[in-house]
Amino acid sequence: MSKFHVLGVDHLGVACADLDEGSKFWAECMGVPCSGKETVAEQKVTTVFHPMWNGSQVELLVATAPDSPIAKWMEGNGGKGGIQHVALRVDNIDAAIEELQEKGVKMIDKKARRGAGGADIAFIHPKSTGGILLEICELRDKREAY
Amino acid sequence: MSKFHVLGVDHLGVACADLDEGSKFWAECMGVPCSGKETVAEQKVTTVFHPMWNGSQVELLVATAPDSPIAKWMEGNGGKGGIQHVALRVDNIDAAIEELQEKGVKMIDKKARRGAGGADIAFIHPKSTGGILLEICELRDKREAY
Repeated sequence: MSKFHVLGVDHLGVACADLDEGSKFWAECMGVPCSGKETVAEQKVTTVFHPMWNGSQVELLVATAPDSPIAKWMEGNGGKGGIQHVALRVDNIDAAIEELQEKGVKMIDKKARRGAGGADIAFIHPKSTGGILLEICELRDKREAY
Repeated sequence: MSKFHVLGVDHLGVACADLDEGSKFWAECMGVPCSGKETVAEQKVTTVFHPMWNGSQVELLVATAPDSPIAKWMEGNGGKGGIQHVALRVDNIDAAIEELQEKGVKMIDKKARRGAGGADIAFIHPKSTGGILLEICELRDKREAY
């Protein structure tokens, strides 16, 4: 019996060079408006969110410094944008981190930390996931839950 | 007024070298069981699905021939697996294709075609999406809708 449950895709983490241009595609072409902007100083990143009807979001990410993880990821991706990470919403992130480690999954974050949007987050190493930088997150504000 | 609506993430298209190994991670570590396996001969790909609680799925993809789009994508990704595409569920795929083209978005598929899982699908060119191979899909079986 699992100690946690994966609820679904919480957000797509999309690296881009220009937030305005990226945001314009989602709002004007896809009809998914922007709900807010946030800078996470620790991660050297500014993000905007485009929430979709079922509660999943597109999170556009732009680097605020050359040594930002997003800047480095784009360098490794030939200077182009794309999906840098995917986040899955779970019902109990502390239990998930503990259980995943017990099962031999390599965690980048061995303890949950605060991410954008007020969620508790932790990253799983791509070596354990088949090449995906996978985030798990638990919403602190339960009103936002599915 | 938009003629279509994006409902949310339908599935993550994850390229992998070994379906059993990929499926094992999702079922045994993440607690998201496999619901079925399907080969799409036209795309030279075999897929397995891992549906999550909110209706979004992980779709693992393995090439069935060296000239499969998945084999080529993995070659371009240094031989490694990862997120090859993301699919968004829409309420009216024909209207979406028409409206996106009117807005100057480059469609790979200018007409919806049948994809895995019995959905009608169309791909948007990564040049228009900021580097993401984005699929839009409409479920034919409305019972599966969110």
